[in-house]
Amino acid sequence: MDTFEFLESEVRFYCRDFPTVFTKGIGCKLFDEQGREYLDFFSGAGTLNYGHNNPRLKRRLIEYLESDSITHSLDMATAVKREFLERFNSLILTPRRLRYKTQFCGPTGTNAVEAALKLARKATGRQTVIFFMNAYHGLSLGSLAVTGNGSKRASAGVPLNYTMPMPFDGDLGANVNTLDYFEAFLEEPGSGMELPAAIIVETIQAEGGVKVANYEWLRRLEDLARHHQIVFIVDDIQVGCGRTGTFFSFEDAGIRPDMVCLSKAIGGFGLPMALLLIRPELDVWQPGEHTGTFRGNNLAFASASEALDCYWQDGAFTESILKKSELATRLLREIVESHAEARAWVRGRGLIQGLGFDVKGLAQQVAHIAFERGLIIETSGARSEVVKLLPPLTIDEEDLKDGIARINDSLEVALDRMDLSHKEAQVPQKVFS
Amino acid sequence: MDTFEFLESEVRFYCRDFPTVFTKGIGCKLFDEQGREYLDFFSGAGTLNYGHNNPRLKRRLIEYLESDSITHSLDMATAVKREFLERFNSLILTPRRLRYKTQFCGPTGTNAVEAALKLARKATGRQTVIFFMNAYHGLSLGSLAVTGNGSKRASAGVPLNYTMPMPFDGDLGANVNTLDYFEAFLEEPGSGMELPAAIIVETIQAEGGVKVANYEWLRRLEDLARHHQIVFIVDDIQVGCGRTGTFFSFEDAGIRPDMVCLSKAIGGFGLPMALLLIRPELDVWQPGEHTGTFRGNNLAFASASEALDCYWQDGAFTESILKKSELATRLLREIVESHAEARAWVRGRGLIQGLGFDVKGLAQQVAHIAFERGLIIETSGARSEVVKLLPPLTIDEEDLKDGIARINDSLEVALDRMDLSHKEAQVPQKVFS
Amino acid sequence: MDTFEFLESEVRFYCRDFPTVFTKGIGCKLFDEQGREYLDFFSGAGTLNYGHNNPRLKRRLIEYLESDSITHSLDMATAVKREFLERFNSLILTPRRLRYKTQFCGPTGTNAVEAALKLARKATGRQTVIFFMNAYHGLSLGSLAVTGNGSKRASAGVPLNYTMPMPFDGDLGANVNTLDYFEAFLEEPGSGMELPAAIIVETIQAEGGVKVANYEWLRRLEDLARHHQIVFIVDDIQVGCGRTGTFFSFEDAGIRPDMVCLSKAIGGFGLPMALLLIRPELDVWQPGEHTGTFRGNNLAFASASEALDCYWQDGAFTESILKKSELATRLLREIVESHAEARAWVRGRGLIQGLGFDVKGLAQQVAHIAFERGLIIETSGARSEVVKLLPPLTIDEEDLKDGIARINDSLEVALDRMDLSHKEAQVPQKVFS
Amino acid sequence: MDTFEFLESEVRFYCRDFPTVFTKGIGCKLFDEQGREYLDFFSGAGTLNYGHNNPRLKRRLIEYLESDSITHSLDMATAVKREFLERFNSLILTPRRLRYKTQFCGPTGTNAVEAALKLARKATGRQTVIFFMNAYHGLSLGSLAVTGNGSKRASAGVPLNYTMPMPFDGDLGANVNTLDYFEAFLEEPGSGMELPAAIIVETIQAEGGVKVANYEWLRRLEDLARHHQIVFIVDDIQVGCGRTGTFFSFEDAGIRPDMVCLSKAIGGFGLPMALLLIRPELDVWQPGEHTGTFRGNNLAFASASEALDCYWQDGAFTESILKKSELATRLLREIVESHAEARAWVRGRGLIQGLGFDVKGLAQQVAHIAFERGLIIETSGARSEVVKLLPPLTIDEEDLKDGIARINDSLEVALDRMDLSHKEAQVPQKVFS
Repeated sequence: MDTFEFLESEVRFYCRDFPTVFTKGIGCKLFDEQGREYLDFFSGAGTLNYGHNNPRLKRRLIEYLESDSITHSLDMATAVKREFLERFNSLILTPRRLRYKTQFCGPTGTNAVEAALKLARKATGRQTVIFFMNAYHGLSLGSLAVTGNGSKRASAGVPLNYTMPMPFDGDLGANVNTLDYFEAFLEEPGSGMELPAAIIVETIQAEGGVKVANYEWLRRLEDLARHHQIVFIVDDIQVGCGRTGTFFSFEDAGIRPDMVCLSKAIGGFGLPMALLLIRPELDVWQPGEHTGTFRGNNLAFASASEALDCYWQDGAFTESILKKSELATRLLREIVESHAEARAWVRGRGLIQGLGFDVKGLAQQVAHIAFERGLIIETSGARSEVVKLLPPLTIDEEDLKDGIARINDSLEVALDRMDLSHKEAQVPQKVFS
Repeated sequence: MDTFEFLESEVRFYCRDFPTVFTKGIGCKLFDEQGREYLDFFSGAGTLNYGHNNPRLKRRLIEYLESDSITHSLDMATAVKREFLERFNSLILTPRRLRYKTQFCGPTGTNAVEAALKLARKATGRQTVIFFMNAYHGLSLGSLAVTGNGSKRASAGVPLNYTMPMPFDGDLGANVNTLDYFEAFLEEPGSGMELPAAIIVETIQAEGGVKVANYEWLRRLEDLARHHQIVFIVDDIQVGCGRTGTFFSFEDAGIRPDMVCLSKAIGGFGLPMALLLIRPELDVWQPGEHTGTFRGNNLAFASASEALDCYWQDGAFTESILKKSELATRLLREIVESHAEARAWVRGRGLIQGLGFDVKGLAQQVAHIAFERGLIIETSGARSEVVKLLPPLTIDEEDLKDGIARINDSLEVALDRMDLSHKEAQVPQKVFS
Repeated sequence: MDTFEFLESEVRFYCRDFPTVFTKGIGCKLFDEQGREYLDFFSGAGTLNYGHNNPRLKRRLIEYLESDSITHSLDMATAVKREFLERFNSLILTPRRLRYKTQFCGPTGTNAVEAALKLARKATGRQTVIFFMNAYHGLSLGSLAVTGNGSKRASAGVPLNYTMPMPFDGDLGANVNTLDYFEAFLEEPGSGMELPAAIIVETIQAEGGVKVANYEWLRRLEDLARHHQIVFIVDDIQVGCGRTGTFFSFEDAGIRPDMVCLSKAIGGFGLPMALLLIRPELDVWQPGEHTGTFRGNNLAFASASEALDCYWQDGAFTESILKKSELATRLLREIVESHAEARAWVRGRGLIQGLGFDVKGLAQQVAHIAFERGLIIETSGARSEVVKLLPPLTIDEEDLKDGIARINDSLEVALDRMDLSHKEAQVPQKVFS
Repeated sequence: MDTFEFLESEVRFYCRDFPTVFTKGIGCKLFDEQGREYLDFFSGAGTLNYGHNNPRLKRRLIEYLESDSITHSLDMATAVKREFLERFNSLILTPRRLRYKTQFCGPTGTNAVEAALKLARKATGRQTVIFFMNAYHGLSLGSLAVTGNGSKRASAGVPLNYTMPMPFDGDLGANVNTLDYFEAFLEEPGSGMELPAAIIVETIQAEGGVKVANYEWLRRLEDLARHHQIVFIVDDIQVGCGRTGTFFSFEDAGIRPDMVCLSKAIGGFGLPMALLLIRPELDVWQPGEHTGTFRGNNLAFASASEALDCYWQDGAFTESILKKSELATRLLREIVESHAEARAWVRGRGLIQGLGFDVKGLAQQVAHIAFERGLIIETSGARSEVVKLLPPLTIDEEDLKDGIARINDSLEVALDRMDLSHKEAQVPQKVFS
């Protein structure tokens, strides 16, 4: 690891939590230089939904390269780009009766968010964008302004303006509908809030601690947006592409966002790719108004097309995800029940599940011990209070059980190590409980 | 092309100037669905310095994929990442006596710029960043604030603050040293300009019209930065990685930037990759303070390492570029001299050359006709007044001559089509000539 | 009135509502060129608390002028400035056990607010200032950023940043304590709200529609400020100087603001004057850091000192105000009860009373008709839904009754003119009722 | 002075330079509690152009008060307001063939500037306002953003946006026309500067060190503004109302600003008053869009009207000022010539004259010693390098000579005290000399 310490910037992060040099990845397994095997419940933060080196996708990429096909074209037309556009339209959009135009942004989630905010502001002529407490939408300056995390915001080095935070579903306790508050700001002419250009929301705040918005809350949010002609943007970067079971995380809620940001798993193989889906009426871009060198990552189009072909021809993949989701939820609930002193709870949808602890520092301990036991897993939440399960969607039930068993074991070791009788309780996660 | 019109956003750009569907690329050649061959003098805006599907790089990528190596790891340590870091250090930094730590940003140039600005602001505790007229540093909100182009800036939809433009070298005519202005703003306590955090500069404004900064001007700029403890950032995204002959565009100027942004050609094969080089004393990042899902594009590390190995072991590549540069310059000057009515001029360094015209619209006409004649070439400059030559650096002399000959032919056709006797002169490119 | 139309800017306002040329003012009476007499229930928006041309104050001013005393001194020391400082300290601050240093700002309320915000930001090194829905703190750029009114904000012509609105007491209905929201934003590290520098609040939102904050709400607000070391500023410009009975409007709430803005009535005679009271520990100004040509309006110091001497030596003035307040409240309630179709309500404290109507446009009709009947009175509230009573504090009971009787008469005429059976109900004033 | 130290904020300023308690003022004389007499060459920073307690103005004010005329009316119509409007129109505007509508702002110069910037932004729909190095336009947030002084700007506590500084006439040395630079920013579409809403300029930078703009420079600036439809604002707060001889400082330059800010001396007697003159086409205010409690300071209207009547019926006052100006210039040049070691120089127009020194600290010494010798005079300039002469315009020649003689004496004492042979030279005032 010396090379990294001497030559890479201090900004490096996950290599500190998982301090080994990885060499190979197959399915839900990672291997390091010492030949040690790890179970991957992190999946590149939701990028590797189809597993590491998925064989069909890999074959497609090798063939693509071997045929001297185009790997870089800025946004010139290529055969593989057309293939992706057509397949995405026929397999994803049309069956869901969604009509969107696709913008290929720079191949990062944050760039899709930047594009969405620009376009919403242009289309409305307004400036303010509403975001939610604990939201995470990226770290370039435009996206950072709609990200809640205080220390990330501080790192901007300049004030983050033209945005306004609102409480997310549940942030004021179970008895308060936080949209009452937003509605008051919208309805009152002297509220001091300018009419917003856009609302950007995650249906599940993954980085924010696996906070799941209620469907009814999402529908009312959409209604408020419609009523005030505010552009309604869903950031489905981490929880789209099947993570919750359905392709889009918002399908079951019955909402139809004006714009959808996709990235991470859309490329299928871990290759950089991002796109913005735009309701056609809002596609008011001038040619070239938002560009970027890698907005046509043709190699990623190849694996992305292949992934759609392999997994999204019918409902089978969704069914398998939901089945594994039920298994995971059941097993996690058993952990919660059998370790009352951990004051734990579970929440999530599909194969994003959060195991949270009201004991300060416990989630981080569990993740740390899990690594020692060959499980890659991360925490999330403003106080790192949630162990976040993000296995590849292609994981089989045995590996899923194995991983959760390792979490259980790690928790027991952690509880042994902490003397909870003398331990101060964790600062409550929410102000209102 | 219907698919693109129906399914892709109006923002698409180059596919309008080069309206065909490309399928293959080999070296400096592109091929479309109809099997037509094109000479590529655009190279993905400087991304494909080693040509399309460079065989050694391609072989490395296929082997990498076949061995199930890591393709996505966020910023966890991998063997190929280590390989890149070590090779970049031994082949590029150490021989040039440069000491930098490397940050792997999100794999886009704009993200490297965002990271540089954040870090400079954090390191200094100041906010204002100085940029230059006609600068281009990217289109995410932070980078856009240091980009000069008026219509791109307007597309932000919000004011772009905490930055201040200064005239670039030559912007006030040959007799005015534009740094006198900047110095006046720095020295005068009542100047209304806060002490800047950083200066960001391109040594050659590629998008801005192939404007080349004088070495002396660059050195005085560095001196001003040092004297006032302002972070001095060179954006070498388009003209680094050998474009001007040397690996970095600033080597011959004798300056040592505090930070350097690299992207485009650094990945070698057109795969998304970007990095920020940081003088170690300025590497004050907290772990994870600037992150991004694709900041470890391992596949790009493989081709990037291979490219360094193939081309930068010694000075031969630089020599060959400079030799071709001389050829190009000579041929372009002949075009200028033999077409006085085009009021043309040449400028550039290495294999970025601009052929500019003081006749309004002529450069665009030339590029348009060139496409009809099988040459992919673009214009640049605030008024699209410059035909910008960006062939792969690996192009051979015959293809280079061939391409320039096609430019010559296109110019003659364009001049025939325009009746210059009745044509109004172009609005002068610069206020002071 | 032609002169005004031809020579004065379109921005003129009250001269449109009260279209006559006034010549004299005595006590609570105004007289116009035609010799018509008006009862003044507006008092210069709370400036003329001691009535027009209060005889003792007038005598002092004339003597001051006759003796060639200093009328303008920037902020040089003068005898009358010392007199004011000493009298304010001995009659107002010391008896209330308040310790403040006094800053003489430019002689406008908005300048006192600008000074308070600057100083709070300087003292804390933070930027965000919290203000409340429907707040009014002035129209220069700094103050406008903490004013709620949407059309006033829009007139800034630039975005208003570094501030954040919160709902005022009662803005979400009687059952919601709006400070729960504010507390959630303060406590949650991922809330997206930076830790504020200051909170600025009116105890009664006079322009905002005579909205009265509960004492308990004010105390909790002060507690939140103390707990997070946020500067707690009360803007007492319109409702201080005895308007609510006590000298400061916050005395009975038992709070001790860190800073208090005073203006309007502090000069006593309608002469421009403003001051900022500062808790000594927060008086971190550098000499001359906030200045202004008229910050020493010595003539106003003379009348201001005299007013303190006349009215604030003991509790008699407060008692008389409270007695008249009770009378006014009783009479207004009678109006409410006897005109159910007006859907009226009363609120206020001391001699600021709001008579509001849930019938759209009715308040404006009443004020309009009242002028015809010789009563000067204004509406307030985001929808001009409240008739605001602001008589001089020195008014006698007969004139007070007379004025309220004229309001009653005007309401009856207004109700006659409007056919309420066919009238749409007013848009409810609050989202939650 | 203890009272001030204990009770007044640390922000107090001039009372530190002139540490005595003043009681009376008559003409160009001030008197303190000890009965000491001072000659006033400061005149309230240009407020007391007609001297302290000017007898005709004083008589008018006393009569006004005695007759119970209106002293405060917000912006309701009053007889004295009409009188002022008519007299200003007939005596000032009409003879100069100027057509302006008058806005009565809050009674401070900074409020007139705030109003001008708002209106210019509204009228153009643009945001950026151009100001000049070392400009001083006030300290409320909007005005501060167009003020050059670095420490004043820092005291804002928030970034000052939507403005951009340009070098003033002469700031880059005698051989550079600084408007070339501004023109380049305007003409170049990629300049990074948005098309400005307005330019605000002082014809003489009084606070900035008595820097006098050349008439030709002002005319070219006006031409640039006209050509680009930028609102052209002259801030004549300190050097208007006769200070340079003519009523407006810009008359002899032959320019016609779109807006003019007046304050300080316009009230005539040192009473707070400010106004904004607006070219009628630009008077696009909505009623009440910019308001303020004291925008109708009726008492000031009385003295203002009287001052116009007394001094501006014909050209005699201008002639007398210019005659005294010549005398002052001649005497100051004699000082310069007879004290070569002081490296002094003179500049100014009318009765604003700056005596500058290229010896560090000397100007402050001179002002300090002058106070000991009974002369009130201040320094200005970013480095306090200029002694600024601002006597009342009504001063007689004897007093003028007397004051300048005291300056001469003070300089000699100062030079004696400083051992210039060992003294470091002052940092040059301008970068380019």
